[in-house]
Amino acid sequence: MSSAPLQTLDRKLKRIQTLESVSGLLGWDELVNLPPESADQRAEQSAALAQVCHNASVDPELGQVLADLEAQIESLDASDQIVLKEARKDYDRAARLPEEYVDRKARLDSAAYHAWARARADSDFAQFAPFLQQQLDAAREFAEHLGWGDRAYDCHIDLHDPGMDTATIAALFSELKTELAPIVERILNSNTKPDVSIFKGFPIEAQSEFLKTITSDLGFDYQRGRIDVSLHPFCSGNGADTRMTTRFDADNPLDSLFSAIHETGHGLYEQGLPRDQLHTALGKAAGMGAHESQSRLWENQVCRSRAFWNRYESDFRERFPSQLENVSSDALYLAINSVSRNPIRVDSDEVTYNLHIIIRFELEQRLFDGSLSANDLPEAWNALYKELLDITPRNDAEGVLQDVHWSGGAFGYFPSYCLGNLLAAQLWYAALEQLPELEADFERGEFTRLLEWLRTNVHAHGKRLPLNELAVASTGSPLSTQALVKYLEDRYLPLYS
Amino acid sequence: MSSAPLQTLDRKLKRIQTLESVSGLLGWDELVNLPPESADQRAEQSAALAQVCHNASVDPELGQVLADLEAQIESLDASDQIVLKEARKDYDRAARLPEEYVDRKARLDSAAYHAWARARADSDFAQFAPFLQQQLDAAREFAEHLGWGDRAYDCHIDLHDPGMDTATIAALFSELKTELAPIVERILNSNTKPDVSIFKGFPIEAQSEFLKTITSDLGFDYQRGRIDVSLHPFCSGNGADTRMTTRFDADNPLDSLFSAIHETGHGLYEQGLPRDQLHTALGKAAGMGAHESQSRLWENQVCRSRAFWNRYESDFRERFPSQLENVSSDALYLAINSVSRNPIRVDSDEVTYNLHIIIRFELEQRLFDGSLSANDLPEAWNALYKELLDITPRNDAEGVLQDVHWSGGAFGYFPSYCLGNLLAAQLWYAALEQLPELEADFERGEFTRLLEWLRTNVHAHGKRLPLNELAVASTGSPLSTQALVKYLEDRYLPLYS
Repeated sequence: MSSAPLQTLDRKLKRIQTLESVSGLLGWDELVNLPPESADQRAEQSAALAQVCHNASVDPELGQVLADLEAQIESLDASDQIVLKEARKDYDRAARLPEEYVDRKARLDSAAYHAWARARADSDFAQFAPFLQQQLDAAREFAEHLGWGDRAYDCHIDLHDPGMDTATIAALFSELKTELAPIVERILNSNTKPDVSIFKGFPIEAQSEFLKTITSDLGFDYQRGRIDVSLHPFCSGNGADTRMTTRFDADNPLDSLFSAIHETGHGLYEQGLPRDQLHTALGKAAGMGAHESQSRLWENQVCRSRAFWNRYESDFRERFPSQLENVSSDALYLAINSVSRNPIRVDSDEVTYNLHIIIRFELEQRLFDGSLSANDLPEAWNALYKELLDITPRNDAEGVLQDVHWSGGAFGYFPSYCLGNLLAAQLWYAALEQLPELEADFERGEFTRLLEWLRTNVHAHGKRLPLNELAVASTGSPLSTQALVKYLEDRYLPLYS
Repeated sequence: MSSAPLQTLDRKLKRIQTLESVSGLLGWDELVNLPPESADQRAEQSAALAQVCHNASVDPELGQVLADLEAQIESLDASDQIVLKEARKDYDRAARLPEEYVDRKARLDSAAYHAWARARADSDFAQFAPFLQQQLDAAREFAEHLGWGDRAYDCHIDLHDPGMDTATIAALFSELKTELAPIVERILNSNTKPDVSIFKGFPIEAQSEFLKTITSDLGFDYQRGRIDVSLHPFCSGNGADTRMTTRFDADNPLDSLFSAIHETGHGLYEQGLPRDQLHTALGKAAGMGAHESQSRLWENQVCRSRAFWNRYESDFRERFPSQLENVSSDALYLAINSVSRNPIRVDSDEVTYNLHIIIRFELEQRLFDGSLSANDLPEAWNALYKELLDITPRNDAEGVLQDVHWSGGAFGYFPSYCLGNLLAAQLWYAALEQLPELEADFERGEFTRLLEWLRTNVHAHGKRLPLNELAVASTGSPLSTQALVKYLEDRYLPLYS
């Protein structure tokens, strides 16, 4: 960036990113530190910052410099063109939404969230249905404002994974559903049954130390990040200050450990993005699916592997000698790779997880194309769970009300989780082909080569490439089900033979 | 507040307070949570928020509504008049400073802080002297912008304690210096020598639990506040979300405990201010001296008392049985009320502490009236320490460079500490006269009556009364040395007889 307008653009984007990072910190603090009765002030603080960020995002001088640069776009180098195009998308997304819509949507989000929480507590979908309908209407309106016409669901998918669309995902998921069926069936019908009840009384302090050691070994830079405790694990901030969380349960040490590893995957991505470009598309993540590919790769392909546990099992036993005394090595590894029929997405394993996502994607499509009404959602939900997972949720709380996403109007978000799984498997095999000694690395607690490979092949691209192009650039082929299916077969079928 | 202009004023003050509370949270997070290498981003975030706050503070619409209301001030009720007058002071303080000055001062603060830190590390005042001179010049310029003419030091005193001035403080401190001399001499010449080396190996976790119990008993509301760890203890936030810190040393449990109690005093004040008026003068603290009176009262008059330890000594011993096994009750109480000759202000006891402040006040006066140059400060510092405390600092780090305040241009701040001590003693005797059973309360771990008395007589006033008027309203007389001297004699002379 050198010309005066480019410098103006850079300065304005920097200011937006700085203010948004303050908003992010408010959100982190709310989930990690906020005293129980301080929520009212935090709501006011967050609203005030949101307004400040919005004002910076729709700054008319920013609009002018975008227009000026667009008039000479051919003279810009490739990187500057990317920055300009993404800045234009962000600007339009902020500027094209009428203030009245933004206000109304903020109020709806708050009301719908509370309605969802109450409905879930009462396990009564009917209380939430009218709010879901309003969120669907608002989502369609959003797409219209942004010029997507009646392609509302595509608009929301694109929001999470730029360049993705309903048709592409539908084709992938349809294939995946077919291919997963026999794998799930073989595993669940196997006589091998993991026993996760073997984990009892693991002191939190020792769990915390163990997961800090592991996440450091993986490469998370605690000089520019931290890990804390929250109700639901998450990763926030950016590469300059990456804040992740986990949660602890003395009787479920694998949950805290793998939550921390999952968030470390997100954190490593943030920390690997080009440091001096955090405010432009060159230093931002490619999208939700790409982000999830990183968390899943570290969580599953790396840290549930035999090689990884060959290295860390002895450490784990040293920290919890009495608790693991009667647990064999095989039983431990099987518990780490436990597969089961679970009605709850966030508690499910990496094999069945994809089916939970496919169900939500099918439902979202039907809600958007009008073939399913909000009121009829529970019935459709339960039918799909029966069909794909042979599960009948005992009630709405365990079924259609389990996830928070729809209460905030976050449609088109769920598919990212599964797209991330697809990409993770592809990345794994691509890395392994170029670095066949990777698993030997893991046996020595050495992850640098994999991390460097990801930095070069994924992180360094920032938001330059849409998801499918990123897949091609990093793995040689667009997203497909092949790698994930192969990976799941290779990992799980021998275990559950 | 009912008229439309009053509502506009209220809304704008609310917005300023909300944005400033976000700035406050950034500051808290920086000292409590910030990863070591994330400082650059935090500096940018803080600068961006400072600008946002400044813009809100000098909003021309705010200036207009202030002028409109001033034109009809006689028609406003007393509370609204206070709100208006204080809002005008804040507005002028923000609006009268040229942008160029604000920018230059921000850069000076940063440069002077780093120069001070280096000079202190090298124990070489000469490195800091030119920056101190620039801060003095900037402080004089500040006073001129705000219309104080050549009363620059008064301007800065008024900034910390509205209504206070150099002459009033000089008269008080001169008297106090004379009255303290024989007390200090008797204590330090006594054969009774407290032994603070008796504290060794107090586990942090148990210290933390003990101080949480005590600060809760005192009345700190952890539903709207927290305590964390930082290098230097402080209290930030407001009554809606009060965040205090302490620090831990296994060999100095009294430091962490009394730091926490001191900050709890600040926190109780914040939590006691009128909840719905945090954005106006009605819900803000009266000033630094008033604030310090609260922290000191709880720390010293209450929690160093015999009655308090009659209640808590057994709890303390239960938590640290082996560590306190060979420490007698008298030895413990003496260590809690240890007086010694210490060159460092923050490590000094409540008797000699006032002399440290008087020294700084005398030096500040001379720096401002031109009779002392920045370059000659160390010599003057050491002479006063010799005269008042019979101490010769071993070097600049232990002497003139020990405090951070002057590096940020915070002149007129030190006197507040001693004014707070004066008011704390007056409040103590006034409360005791009206509630003679207070110490019996402490013996039972009961502090509600004292807290309620402070809420009614101090907290409820907000910023309505300048410090001396607050003293009259709450204790029946303006600030004087009488109560503090009587308190110190009553507490310390029997101990060191």
